[in-house]
Amino acid sequence: MTPAERQAGYAAAPTRRVTAHNGIEYAYRDLGASGVPLVLLQHFRGNLDNWDPALIDALAAKRRVVTFDNVGVGASGGATPNTIEAMAHDAIAFIDALEIERVDLLGFSIGSFVAQEIALIRPDLLRRVVLASSAPQGGSGMHGWAPEVIGAVGAPETTPAGYISVFFAPTDASREAGQQAAGRIFGGRTTDRDEPTTWQTRQAQYDAVCAWGFPNHSLLERVAAIDLPVFVANGDSDPMILPRYSYLLAGLIPDARLTIYPDSAHGFLFQHHSRFAADVHAFLDDAE
Amino acid sequence: MTPAERQAGYAAAPTRRVTAHNGIEYAYRDLGASGVPLVLLQHFRGNLDNWDPALIDALAAKRRVVTFDNVGVGASGGATPNTIEAMAHDAIAFIDALEIERVDLLGFSIGSFVAQEIALIRPDLLRRVVLASSAPQGGSGMHGWAPEVIGAVGAPETTPAGYISVFFAPTDASREAGQQAAGRIFGGRTTDRDEPTTWQTRQAQYDAVCAWGFPNHSLLERVAAIDLPVFVANGDSDPMILPRYSYLLAGLIPDARLTIYPDSAHGFLFQHHSRFAADVHAFLDDAE
Repeated sequence: MTPAERQAGYAAAPTRRVTAHNGIEYAYRDLGASGVPLVLLQHFRGNLDNWDPALIDALAAKRRVVTFDNVGVGASGGATPNTIEAMAHDAIAFIDALEIERVDLLGFSIGSFVAQEIALIRPDLLRRVVLASSAPQGGSGMHGWAPEVIGAVGAPETTPAGYISVFFAPTDASREAGQQAAGRIFGGRTTDRDEPTTWQTRQAQYDAVCAWGFPNHSLLERVAAIDLPVFVANGDSDPMILPRYSYLLAGLIPDARLTIYPDSAHGFLFQHHSRFAADVHAFLDDAE
Repeated sequence: MTPAERQAGYAAAPTRRVTAHNGIEYAYRDLGASGVPLVLLQHFRGNLDNWDPALIDALAAKRRVVTFDNVGVGASGGATPNTIEAMAHDAIAFIDALEIERVDLLGFSIGSFVAQEIALIRPDLLRRVVLASSAPQGGSGMHGWAPEVIGAVGAPETTPAGYISVFFAPTDASREAGQQAAGRIFGGRTTDRDEPTTWQTRQAQYDAVCAWGFPNHSLLERVAAIDLPVFVANGDSDPMILPRYSYLLAGLIPDARLTIYPDSAHGFLFQHHSRFAADVHAFLDDAE
């Protein structure tokens, strides 16, 4: 990355490509400082462009940050698998292809499910994990999203209004923050934008989300095996993955800390990008 | 209660007695306004005098508050049983003896275990439940208290210093709050003090605490059956019952809210008595 690229931040970060041992060519962006990289795992139907540049830039100010399209998503090759476990193996293959030995993970929404799975499958690959708008596999009452949520973000053609209704709380302050975030996400980058995600990705990801939510109390115990430090975070009004599942995760994982951000919803990390980035840095720097 | 008694508050509230259908004479105090009574369930080795008068008075300013010694504790008759289930049945017998049809509960520490059990045994008796410094039965890592905790509050002769080391955080502000609370608890009431709790009570209660902490993931599911509104609260530095168990409870109970109070420990509700009482009132008034 040239100094000019670094100055321009995520909105101008070039999209790179790497082919992994599984034969898939992954699209990714790589920016920021040195040290243990922070690899980001994206939300339902999101691609590289759906990360709020304000958040990525705040994270990249202090550490190396890598965003990528998992298999079948956006500009990456292949078809999106329909299980969280397969997505985790696909993410591990990408990290291996970058020849990075150890990373921190920040998983957001379905990406946070993938992050949990990676922590279980390949703990040695990880140092610390951030789970944003997350839930443990098997929690009761989370089999699929509420009708108004999947109606807003699961339709064939999504709209900014639908996005904002799920990612931001129904208050003036949060909706205003949502307009600003949507402006940065959808309007900030004008060239070299990512490929849109497909209906195949939507269906496969939602199958995986629904399977993750089969109620099964015994499966909740899985995350007790995560012996890494974990930071669990959510907005207090998230309608997509209720804050109670963040409580549950933070109670089940032996070494977890929890922050619930005020007056915010699924996209709390974009709304509160400065505070959240500072909290992530504080959490990750504990280990440095 | 006379107007003068009401004015004097908990430090001067008379100790009353009532005999229940189980033949036990219970010692209790009853003060405050009308409406659905708030019945309090006391901590390990605590008697009527171990409630901070500042908290009780803040609660009684807006509602009827009842404190009592459960079977075998302080001035109540009988021997303390060694299971939470038996303590719950004993508490139900006391409430029945007062001829109250429906109550709110505030259980603190071992009293919060009893409150959960009452909510499972006799849900119709309850309207809302506050669980302070609590944990669900079966949580892993809570089989008995940490050596420094049981050493400080479990010895044959307890000391103010031991009490403060567990109930307050190791910061200047919390320790100062602890000195003030200890002054109110141990020095505020000069006549008609309760009987001290016995070694039999200590042993039976700690047997019950250890049994509550047998790790058993399947038992965690029990509290999912509590369909009352629940307010879960703890101090952020509680060494006796770690905050993670409050997260776990709030994640497992379908309709729970959670507050973790800053710079405080097991006795957060005494340290933050004004704020906690206001939060309890807000929670309970939601239902009125």
